[in-house]
Amino acid sequence: MNEEGLVDAIAALTRRAASRVLVGIGDDAAVWQPSRSNRSVVTTDALVEGVHFSLEWMSAQDAGWRAMAANASDLAAKGARPSLATIAFGIPEGATESTVLDWYRGMEACARFADIEIAGGDLTRAPVWVVSITAIGEVRPSNLKLRSAARPGDAIVVTGELGASRAGLLHLAGRIGLEDPEHAVAAHRRPQPRVAEGRWLAASAHVHAMMDCSDGLSTDLHRLVRASGAGARIESVPVARDAAAAAALTGEDPAAFALEGGEDFELIATVDARAYRHLAQRFHARFGRPLFRVGTIQADARVCLVKDGIEVPVSPSGWDHFAVSTPQ
Amino acid sequence: MNEEGLVDAIAALTRRAASRVLVGIGDDAAVWQPSRSNRSVVTTDALVEGVHFSLEWMSAQDAGWRAMAANASDLAAKGARPSLATIAFGIPEGATESTVLDWYRGMEACARFADIEIAGGDLTRAPVWVVSITAIGEVRPSNLKLRSAARPGDAIVVTGELGASRAGLLHLAGRIGLEDPEHAVAAHRRPQPRVAEGRWLAASAHVHAMMDCSDGLSTDLHRLVRASGAGARIESVPVARDAAAAAALTGEDPAAFALEGGEDFELIATVDARAYRHLAQRFHARFGRPLFRVGTIQADARVCLVKDGIEVPVSPSGWDHFAVSTPQ
Repeated sequence: MNEEGLVDAIAALTRRAASRVLVGIGDDAAVWQPSRSNRSVVTTDALVEGVHFSLEWMSAQDAGWRAMAANASDLAAKGARPSLATIAFGIPEGATESTVLDWYRGMEACARFADIEIAGGDLTRAPVWVVSITAIGEVRPSNLKLRSAARPGDAIVVTGELGASRAGLLHLAGRIGLEDPEHAVAAHRRPQPRVAEGRWLAASAHVHAMMDCSDGLSTDLHRLVRASGAGARIESVPVARDAAAAAALTGEDPAAFALEGGEDFELIATVDARAYRHLAQRFHARFGRPLFRVGTIQADARVCLVKDGIEVPVSPSGWDHFAVSTPQ
Repeated sequence: MNEEGLVDAIAALTRRAASRVLVGIGDDAAVWQPSRSNRSVVTTDALVEGVHFSLEWMSAQDAGWRAMAANASDLAAKGARPSLATIAFGIPEGATESTVLDWYRGMEACARFADIEIAGGDLTRAPVWVVSITAIGEVRPSNLKLRSAARPGDAIVVTGELGASRAGLLHLAGRIGLEDPEHAVAAHRRPQPRVAEGRWLAASAHVHAMMDCSDGLSTDLHRLVRASGAGARIESVPVARDAAAAAALTGEDPAAFALEGGEDFELIATVDARAYRHLAQRFHARFGRPLFRVGTIQADARVCLVKDGIEVPVSPSGWDHFAVSTPQ
């Protein structure tokens, strides 16, 4: 394995027939032409072996898919059309070229799903597998949605059911034994970034705030209301079937299980409450599934869950790899 | 140390009075408005503790500076005006918040030097310090310089003397004892990306190809001629004073020492030979130092060094951290 040979193989693997990249892999930098009327959007997400994933539970191709999906999801959350990505890739001693190329096959597969073109990056040695992806997209100025734009009274919506990825992870880690694990395992290994949904929602002036749900709804909703100087009342959590089955096995409340389940990569949006019903109808017609109403933005800066008619405080206790590993 | 507190501290540390970023740290993605007539340029470089640097030899602030400098240098090599950067940052167990902020102080100091605005990123746990920076800039379409545009007969030039950083590294590692190490150590710890020089050279139609010299002139010149389908004849290597002193201590030939010394972050350009003299005069007037002529691009796809009137083949044996650690 040598660097130049690897770079050539990666360039071949990620080459597109119709490229939007003017200069790509093989130069000091990649070059493209942003469209004249749009804003540019950039996001960076890193995955580290032993912190975010284990190759015991998924293949290098799946891990590559997930790394790209996390970035595509961030672009989706801004209503952006994805454009290109660069990849900084750390390779441990003893790794084979075929495993490295499997990573890139997984990243390329998700990049094609999200219409992202891999335009460059950096290969290096590292103590463990480390992949840091930067994805760039574009958004019409009027479509850009921020975390901070939620308004009291807004309906809080999510683009899909929650908790399936966490159920899949617990099954893969041997913590539970799901009877029919395939869907949950796929949800964990190949999460689908909601790029089309994000662009569709962003085009509506009734949608005020948007972000992606990568660390669990309880954590991410806290972030959204904190940025907006508001609070939230959670009235109904859309629990994925696999999450309900997993919660039954762990003895948790299904809604709590789904609230704390990270990496579903659904989008969270806040919508003018009067527009919710019509928007949800159109969403269903377009995407063939519900736009779930989770609750309501409140002026009061608390997050609570309505359970059996009683308001229970919700802490931001979703999956936070950073706080978890530093409990002080 | 918790993630949200760190993000707030980093946002405060990198805040600019006049920002070109429309949405910065604290949302899912950063947003900016590229100028209408330019191309956008993106580059990614990762530094891994134990592979690229050791905190035994430099402070966290210096390591942060170097990480940002490597990216700024890649933008400089394309003739780009730097704009913004995102940082994926891996923090080992036991690290203190104050060390993390020192890293960001160093990155911010170099970012200000290069006129880059830190716009976002990702914090994560990692087994060692890992920093992956993506820097974005802009270039006028007519100014963009590629690695692949060198033409036979072009003069090969570099923007400064070579080898000082390697001399500083050997001194810091205790392999040699320089009598007067300060300049060499500074060259290693705080390399100055040639952003102004890159933009200036890029504005000349007589400059054909450009790249940065980050892995040593012998390695990088091989890359440039390979991309251009050409070869090179090296006639004169501008050896830094510290490199000559270090070579005397290691017993190496001074030119060979400088050729193999990575991380000087000078720019390599190829220039229409007839225009070289006038360009070098203007360069000297503008920057107060010579534009060194190193050699000539040749049609024949070899790289050789003229030594005592004899052509000696030069291998791409500069510092390649990737090949070095995988000798198979």
